[in-house]
Amino acid sequence: MKIAVDAMGGDNAPQTIVEGVEKARDEFLDVEFILFGDRAQVDPLLHNTERITLVQADEQIEMNDEPVRAIRRKKNSSMVMAATAVKNGEADALFSCGNTGALLAAGLLLVGRIKGISRPGLVSTLPVISAENGSFNLLDSGANADGKAEQLYQYALLGKYYATSIRGIKEPRIGLLNNGTEPHKGSKLTLEAHQLIAADKSINFVGNVESRDLLNGVCDVVIADGFTGNAVLKAIEGTASSIMHLLKDTIMSSGVSGKLGALLLKSSLSQLKSKMDQSQYGGAVLLGVKAPVVKAHGASDGQTVYYTIKQIKSMIDGEMLPNFTKYFAAQQAQEAAKKEAANETAE
Amino acid sequence: MKIAVDAMGGDNAPQTIVEGVEKARDEFLDVEFILFGDRAQVDPLLHNTERITLVQADEQIEMNDEPVRAIRRKKNSSMVMAATAVKNGEADALFSCGNTGALLAAGLLLVGRIKGISRPGLVSTLPVISAENGSFNLLDSGANADGKAEQLYQYALLGKYYATSIRGIKEPRIGLLNNGTEPHKGSKLTLEAHQLIAADKSINFVGNVESRDLLNGVCDVVIADGFTGNAVLKAIEGTASSIMHLLKDTIMSSGVSGKLGALLLKSSLSQLKSKMDQSQYGGAVLLGVKAPVVKAHGASDGQTVYYTIKQIKSMIDGEMLPNFTKYFAAQQAQEAAKKEAANETAE
Repeated sequence: MKIAVDAMGGDNAPQTIVEGVEKARDEFLDVEFILFGDRAQVDPLLHNTERITLVQADEQIEMNDEPVRAIRRKKNSSMVMAATAVKNGEADALFSCGNTGALLAAGLLLVGRIKGISRPGLVSTLPVISAENGSFNLLDSGANADGKAEQLYQYALLGKYYATSIRGIKEPRIGLLNNGTEPHKGSKLTLEAHQLIAADKSINFVGNVESRDLLNGVCDVVIADGFTGNAVLKAIEGTASSIMHLLKDTIMSSGVSGKLGALLLKSSLSQLKSKMDQSQYGGAVLLGVKAPVVKAHGASDGQTVYYTIKQIKSMIDGEMLPNFTKYFAAQQAQEAAKKEAANETAE
Repeated sequence: MKIAVDAMGGDNAPQTIVEGVEKARDEFLDVEFILFGDRAQVDPLLHNTERITLVQADEQIEMNDEPVRAIRRKKNSSMVMAATAVKNGEADALFSCGNTGALLAAGLLLVGRIKGISRPGLVSTLPVISAENGSFNLLDSGANADGKAEQLYQYALLGKYYATSIRGIKEPRIGLLNNGTEPHKGSKLTLEAHQLIAADKSINFVGNVESRDLLNGVCDVVIADGFTGNAVLKAIEGTASSIMHLLKDTIMSSGVSGKLGALLLKSSLSQLKSKMDQSQYGGAVLLGVKAPVVKAHGASDGQTVYYTIKQIKSMIDGEMLPNFTKYFAAQQAQEAAKKEAANETAE
């Protein structure tokens, strides 16, 4: 398999990108890479070019570029060139730590939607605090600001295949993010989406879930519209980060006994920190496009880049995309057959 | 001033309700109380009945009662009787630790909307972690699952008067919860609400805010639709509670040195815990109805009940309701005048 990498996206690019790619290259012997970037900067960082092809990109998309405009105009940017390689079948997946909006636009406009998918959604992975190595997926975590019930239903299907292929969960528990757990509760959108998801018996639907229970592992995949999903994701991240800072500040200002206490607790505190550290869960994935399009945090270090490549490899090994495509093609064929039958009856 | 109290609502009622009410009665000499509840249970708990009237209520609304139905049918419940006392002008505010949905329905159906308000919204208070004694308000935190832009604009006005009268902030910074800080970002709803709020120069609007920045005090009042507000509120609460549990578990399983460390850090950790403890911020208030309708947590102890009564007193002392009523009446008169002028021109 071949992964197209935007070597210039992110705060610490190309340094950390090259670091992560080389670590992954050394470990995963069946993966090849095409790095798109400024040869003068990238080349000196590479230890060796085994299974790595470096392609010159003359420009790059900046963090504050307007996404769609940047994708249309900056044809020679590392991100657009990497996306184009996927579009042309020269690579199987796209990876970037750059401008999120631009990467979503590149996925949509260049890599393209899977037939039958209304709106691709972004899936993020977060820790389940109550379980060792536990995690859950949140989808849509921000690709679309205005969600429709039909789209939420498709997210449930996409999330199911994703959790199965990436995390090896046979029948992932799918929950719908709502303002109460009772089936009669909700907004117009969640009430409608609840019915659509519940009607599909191929989905292991656990019903409505509340955001206060997510970190306790109430389900494996949480379905939400992109606006709410984004707000909840950022609320969890922000709260975790604020508390960790407060804890640190409180300890630092607590005098000698407090500092001694912190020293004795050092391993416990770093365990806590590592649990909350999202980098080990890889990047956010745009689901519903024809190839894995994956975004890692702008501030990613080499280790995170490595984890994200591992995640991409799982998606390809787990045949996530062929499964998606087959499923939605079959669904479309079914609908077409139904329509034809209805037409014949009418005649 | 007189406060109508549902003495039977909440997990620890009437015990904690009576405790909190007596503490508040002893401190606030200008406050009278009417307690609605089961005389046989409440009477023995009272130390003395100075400025406390006890009224017999034969039934009570349970936590799993369907809200609107319960309000309509259980006329002799402590909550409905307390709300009716406010409706009839026998009391100035309504307080309960019971069924939230039922209390919102009681506020809407019995206490009644202020003229000109489209949908009352629920305001909650949360801690700002980065500032000593800091806090912010979130509105709507869950009264309405489907928000409209016009309602969000009214929340900005209600939130402004609330923060001024309760917290003494002269020009509270109002932020709109969004999926990005840039003015061009957002859902259809937030884009429209942004324009409405920005156009009103009486509001100190700081623009869009993201949920990850709320605990850092990015603004004094956060405006959101009730669905997103509820999801963000519960995400913050859930994350804080999960991390505090994880911290405790990690320490407990960390052997002798860890436990010794925790002992030395005891005061720091309890400082952290108290910062995250929301009870000191009182209850959630339904804004937009004709009197303060206030809900404290079902598990509230006497101290929280006391804090919430203190909060109600501030609303009355700060003339929040007369300010609301005056403002929205003037706004309605203006609009009526505009329409009349338009009609005259047309003729």
